[in-house]
Amino acid sequence: MKEPYQRYVHTLTRSRLFQIDAVGLRFSNGTEVEFERLSPGHDGGAVLVVPITEHGELLMIREYAVGTERYELGFPKGRLEVDESPGTGARRELREETGYDAHRIDELRRVTLAPGYIAHETTIILARQLTHAPLRGDEPEPPELIGWPLNRFDELLNQQGLTEARSIAALYLAQTFLDATTGD
Amino acid sequence: MKEPYQRYVHTLTRSRLFQIDAVGLRFSNGTEVEFERLSPGHDGGAVLVVPITEHGELLMIREYAVGTERYELGFPKGRLEVDESPGTGARRELREETGYDAHRIDELRRVTLAPGYIAHETTIILARQLTHAPLRGDEPEPPELIGWPLNRFDELLNQQGLTEARSIAALYLAQTFLDATTGD
Repeated sequence: MKEPYQRYVHTLTRSRLFQIDAVGLRFSNGTEVEFERLSPGHDGGAVLVVPITEHGELLMIREYAVGTERYELGFPKGRLEVDESPGTGARRELREETGYDAHRIDELRRVTLAPGYIAHETTIILARQLTHAPLRGDEPEPPELIGWPLNRFDELLNQQGLTEARSIAALYLAQTFLDATTGD
Repeated sequence: MKEPYQRYVHTLTRSRLFQIDAVGLRFSNGTEVEFERLSPGHDGGAVLVVPITEHGELLMIREYAVGTERYELGFPKGRLEVDESPGTGARRELREETGYDAHRIDELRRVTLAPGYIAHETTIILARQLTHAPLRGDEPEPPELIGWPLNRFDELLNQQGLTEARSIAALYLAQTFLDATTGD
């Protein structure tokens, strides 16, 4: 289909973290609509890291999420710093949130969160060959570290607190990647 | 871990669609932090529908997303109306976006988008036993309808425009559900 014509973009309001824009579009059939979206601003994207130990365990964390107001089970993740590559950012976040560095990094996929509302992209990274190398992060309390055997994958999906679509997608993508590269 | 104490919540700014709140938390270790989050407001959640035809095809749509400023490939989805159940909302969205109604509905899972920033939940629904029953929606242009054979699942993951973590998670969750209920 033919891309809609962008009639205007203007900023409606902003806070320290967020900026809300209005976007006026004219579609190729003549329909004109105004949408609201969150502006990318200085969003350089994020990484979500699936760390696997030499014992075949996934390293997951449980930390408080202020959006849902509860502890959530998921993977280490965070925003990329300015000019930071996904691989470098993944290793930094992993060190900050789990205390481990990774010497083997595979980029599995870039995913979006809600393409109708925000441009944000997260790179899902598989991290292996882990060594203990903690780095101080900005977490208000140290995340609880949880090791989960890869061969109990199905049970993991039923664990309380594992709700985030990105973490669920990452789990399946990691399993698919590992199945396809067995013996690698 | 012990839940943090919520010292305050106040609204920083809002637009027609979004509200940004500041939340002050004290963690059990004494650390005090102020977070920004998007307020749930009147968000009753959303549905994302994985429709499967009697010929074993997934029905997907390609539609323009103003967040990423491009056409995205994904599943029919949308916000629930006030007091609308996920099953009812799924059938409505499916009729609006694909022209089909579903006579068999299975709720696969509720997922979050970004629990650190927003409470929003999406219910992923498997929709089968489809019949032609279009309903007029509010789409600015009719979404392009794409049938994809379930047995070419791996190829689908490599299609351009399939970026959304919710859609990718939904694909895998539907496949897992179907594998577990074969002959059902």
